[in-house]
Amino acid sequence: MIEEKNQPLRSIEELGEFALIDHLTKAFKTTRNETLKGIGDDAALLEMGDQKTVISTDMLVEGIHFNLSYMPMRHLGYKAVVVNLSDICAMNARPTHVTVSISVSNRFTLEALEAFYKGVQDACEAYKVDLVGGDTTASLKGMTISVTAIGKVNEDKVVYRNGAKENDLLVVSGDLGGAYLGFQVLERERQVFEANPKHQPDLEPYHYIVQRQLKPEARLDIVELLEALEVTPSAMIDISDGLSSEALHLHKESEVGVVIYEEKLPIDPTVITVSDEFGLNPTTTVLNGGEDYELLFSISQEDYPKIKANPNLTVIGHIAEKAKGAQLVLRSGEQSELKAQGWTSF
Amino acid sequence: MIEEKNQPLRSIEELGEFALIDHLTKAFKTTRNETLKGIGDDAALLEMGDQKTVISTDMLVEGIHFNLSYMPMRHLGYKAVVVNLSDICAMNARPTHVTVSISVSNRFTLEALEAFYKGVQDACEAYKVDLVGGDTTASLKGMTISVTAIGKVNEDKVVYRNGAKENDLLVVSGDLGGAYLGFQVLERERQVFEANPKHQPDLEPYHYIVQRQLKPEARLDIVELLEALEVTPSAMIDISDGLSSEALHLHKESEVGVVIYEEKLPIDPTVITVSDEFGLNPTTTVLNGGEDYELLFSISQEDYPKIKANPNLTVIGHIAEKAKGAQLVLRSGEQSELKAQGWTSF
Repeated sequence: MIEEKNQPLRSIEELGEFALIDHLTKAFKTTRNETLKGIGDDAALLEMGDQKTVISTDMLVEGIHFNLSYMPMRHLGYKAVVVNLSDICAMNARPTHVTVSISVSNRFTLEALEAFYKGVQDACEAYKVDLVGGDTTASLKGMTISVTAIGKVNEDKVVYRNGAKENDLLVVSGDLGGAYLGFQVLERERQVFEANPKHQPDLEPYHYIVQRQLKPEARLDIVELLEALEVTPSAMIDISDGLSSEALHLHKESEVGVVIYEEKLPIDPTVITVSDEFGLNPTTTVLNGGEDYELLFSISQEDYPKIKANPNLTVIGHIAEKAKGAQLVLRSGEQSELKAQGWTSF
Repeated sequence: MIEEKNQPLRSIEELGEFALIDHLTKAFKTTRNETLKGIGDDAALLEMGDQKTVISTDMLVEGIHFNLSYMPMRHLGYKAVVVNLSDICAMNARPTHVTVSISVSNRFTLEALEAFYKGVQDACEAYKVDLVGGDTTASLKGMTISVTAIGKVNEDKVVYRNGAKENDLLVVSGDLGGAYLGFQVLERERQVFEANPKHQPDLEPYHYIVQRQLKPEARLDIVELLEALEVTPSAMIDISDGLSSEALHLHKESEVGVVIYEEKLPIDPTVITVSDEFGLNPTTTVLNGGEDYELLFSISQEDYPKIKANPNLTVIGHIAEKAKGAQLVLRSGEQSELKAQGWTSF
């Protein structure tokens, strides 16, 4: 799926390091006024002006964070950038620049790397950020991606994880659990395909959740919406490791209790039906499934009228006294302690 | 050499991802006024003020860029940071912040990662930069390191690769070829050790060049010296891939000719004797050996009196008309075209 079958593929050796970087990044034009110098020197030069600078970095490893048997290279390039932009958004900031470094073994063709960089470019265009640096190097085995994202924010608008206050409302954007189930569906299809290579998967019923897995978006639109609504959250985090894990971060960093109501959780109908298909409780999917890249944040109760009509935002609970811990109130009325499943690759 | 033999070693699984990051970075204190928020949120927040921001990133892959059989983890952490700071210095800028991400397989012990981060910390302290982010993740095999460095520079002081002018003098800091020979010595000792594990290497005669390989420095002191001397280079690059390769970058980016005199090349006596030992021409070592992280730059002739007495700086040639290409003038008076060996890992 990453290769055009009718063309001779080119090996990376043909180009060499410097020509490879030039080749892969020549289609990138810088578009931001702050970019005084982009790719091509020892470093990039940026004009950061009077706003504060936000910086975030993530590393993605083949076989740990992605599987190339169902993740097309172009989607991978897009997603690698987006997961970093999501961290910038989680600071209530706007992303402006990224650097993208990859190491690949010589089993990767030039066409595969071109597709990866096309995805990087798609993300740069969609979010109006400039690619201003990176490194393209060899590896003995597999692919590793490292992205650093930079953004800007006014100091009075920056939102950390540690500002949640008792009686604040807990809000989440979009709906949850889809990306995790999309991964489950793709993994199941991969196994079926390995057993029977003639198998033709029908992913149409799973379109929404597969998209959530393969092409997630950073909620820059929510950062912009909150500004338009004149709402500054008291604390915010992006949901990369699952709602439970992120709620526990707010609990720990803000030193407050967190109460979430099961009946309030925003779930797409596909997530309910496919959870059933996999024998999963949809609530478990929502709490522990990662990679949705939605925003979880707390707001003052007096801001509630500003957000209540918005279909992108759901109040799922509230901030309580610290002794309350992190609780889920079940539909039955019972309470259960939130536990992080999170990421356990080691 | 990366393990203390008398202590029980701890596996990474014992800690888990979040605790691992906390554990490895807890000894890092932010020291710079610009660091409004360091590690521990979705992103770091930096105050960049009225200077311009410089950003550079590099990826280092085990088996390609480093070999853990003779590179101690603490040195590796130091070097991974320094090679990025060197890029910032090559813009005539001062480094201020770094992010460090690593992926490691479960053959790495916690003690090894602690040693790596101790080296990162050594570099942060030596160069007065703050570690403000990073990612620590699993890999299926081996170790990959990605570092992003940020720095500051006044717009009128920034130096690109493309500003060299005809008749400018070409200057290099320090001496060249040592890091490459240090690598050759370490590689030879590794092979001897593999053949005979009882072999006790005597590296004392090679101390200088082994240090150049294992613990390179970024020439921030040269950036500071140039400012004190009131010299702003017209073009500058750091020497990571060898003098020839970098001179060719200046030739290409500045669209000028570059003439280097063999007799002017700064060589440490150890580099001459060890080149002999390996049957190498010392000039070839100097031209093609990489990883010295010295600075190569061009200055106006009128600045010559300001730099001529400084033992850290050597005039090795001049900038000529473009048609001249990139030439080495041999001791014999003959001219030979400079060729890049550079990096050929693919």
